Amino acid sequence: MPNDDKIKKVSIIISKGSLEGVYPGLILANGARMKGIEANIFFTFFGLDAITKKKMNKIKVATVGNPAMGIPSLIGIMPGMSALASGMMKKQMEQLDIPPIPEFIEMIYDAGGKLYACLASVEMFKLKKEDFCDQVEDVLTVGDFYELSAGGQIIFT
Amino acid sequence: MPNDDKIKKVSIIISKGSLEGVYPGLILANGARMKGIEANIFFTFFGLDAITKKKMNKIKVATVGNPAMGIPSLIGIMPGMSALASGMMKKQMEQLDIPPIPEFIEMIYDAGGKLYACLASVEMFKLKKEDFCDQVEDVLTVGDFYELSAGGQIIFT
Amino acid sequence: MPNDDKIKKVSIIISKGSLEGVYPGLILANGARMKGIEANIFFTFFGLDAITKKKMNKIKVATVGNPAMGIPSLIGIMPGMSALASGMMKKQMEQLDIPPIPEFIEMIYDAGGKLYACLASVEMFKLKKEDFCDQVEDVLTVGDFYELSAGGQIIFT
Repeated sequence: MPNDDKIKKVSIIISKGSLEGVYPGLILANGARMKGIEANIFFTFFGLDAITKKKMNKIKVATVGNPAMGIPSLIGIMPGMSALASGMMKKQMEQLDIPPIPEFIEMIYDAGGKLYACLASVEMFKLKKEDFCDQVEDVLTVGDFYELSAGGQIIFT
Repeated sequence: MPNDDKIKKVSIIISKGSLEGVYPGLILANGARMKGIEANIFFTFFGLDAITKKKMNKIKVATVGNPAMGIPSLIGIMPGMSALASGMMKKQMEQLDIPPIPEFIEMIYDAGGKLYACLASVEMFKLKKEDFCDQVEDVLTVGDFYELSAGGQIIFT
Repeated sequence: MPNDDKIKKVSIIISKGSLEGVYPGLILANGARMKGIEANIFFTFFGLDAITKKKMNKIKVATVGNPAMGIPSLIGIMPGMSALASGMMKKQMEQLDIPPIPEFIEMIYDAGGKLYACLASVEMFKLKKEDFCDQVEDVLTVGDFYELSAGGQIIFT
């Protein structure tokens, strides 16, 4: 992309289903729209949870397998720890005006961001278009996603 | 990449050694080849497991540290849980005609995808070219990888 | 990026706070500088630990949630296992002349790489510019990061 002085488009893949797996992609998409950059989000694998009506409100922080959380693994596995850490992270985000996932998705959609679900993952988890929130534009193959992403940056989160 | 109407090349980095860490990269590479897009995969860190003859058949799902699995951490740590979850995921993938990792790698190779191992990681894990499956083209430095990736999209998975 | 025969710039996002989450981004940035490629690193979420003076020396391997480590989860949660695995990984890296994180950051900085912290994450973790090592150039919004990244590759690690 030589001689490019501006990014025109970002196509973000969200593939993880934890709070810290979903937010970076949403923040990158939102930041793009705020700068007038075209933004697509492609939800795949466990990332589908973020657009699945029954699950999008219940996404949690991973308290084990993340030494940066500062929670010893022995405590991290205790029932309730993930919910507790998630509650703390959500509170901090609220103070920063970072909305909960469902509202954030609505906000990105209203700002012109486009949301898509990955067909192979949708089939793997036996989901249907109706299982997703209204802001989801379509269910796409990987090939469709590449077409959509041409001329921009692909960011896998 | 203004005025680009098609992606010409994707160079995918696979850096994780769990089933859900390896498949997205393979699916992205395969989807690229199906659309006539040049595809390179660069295996690094724990991602090397996916091309290591002794390990590529034994890659498992991470049952802890992934709240989206819906398995409480206290249960997720039980011996056998990871194998059980892996078996379930593998069965679902089979139903979708997504092949096991060794066959998937062969398929991508046969379709013209190129596979490479990262030199620094190969040295860190004290591996040799012979430890890898036959489809692996070469062991490359990060600098070589950048040369290979010019004119395309780099996707770190 | 057709007709491109060389990558001019990489802008790497480091979002995880474990050893295996931080090193790939540093290795990619260092490899870029060694090839004369412009390199920016944007530290966000738990990735901020890698530039936080009080934490950059204490980053650990995630022993649970990573089946590739070959450590059963039941053992992975034992107090001290993460430190033990980290010690082993650090020793292997030393043998390869891969420096500890603080030295690696200094090396990348000295080679002309630029380091930035993500504003939203800095606010979320209630950090200040003074909490970061001297090599950190600035605290940027996502929009600033996109401007900085134009004409190059964005790599989210």
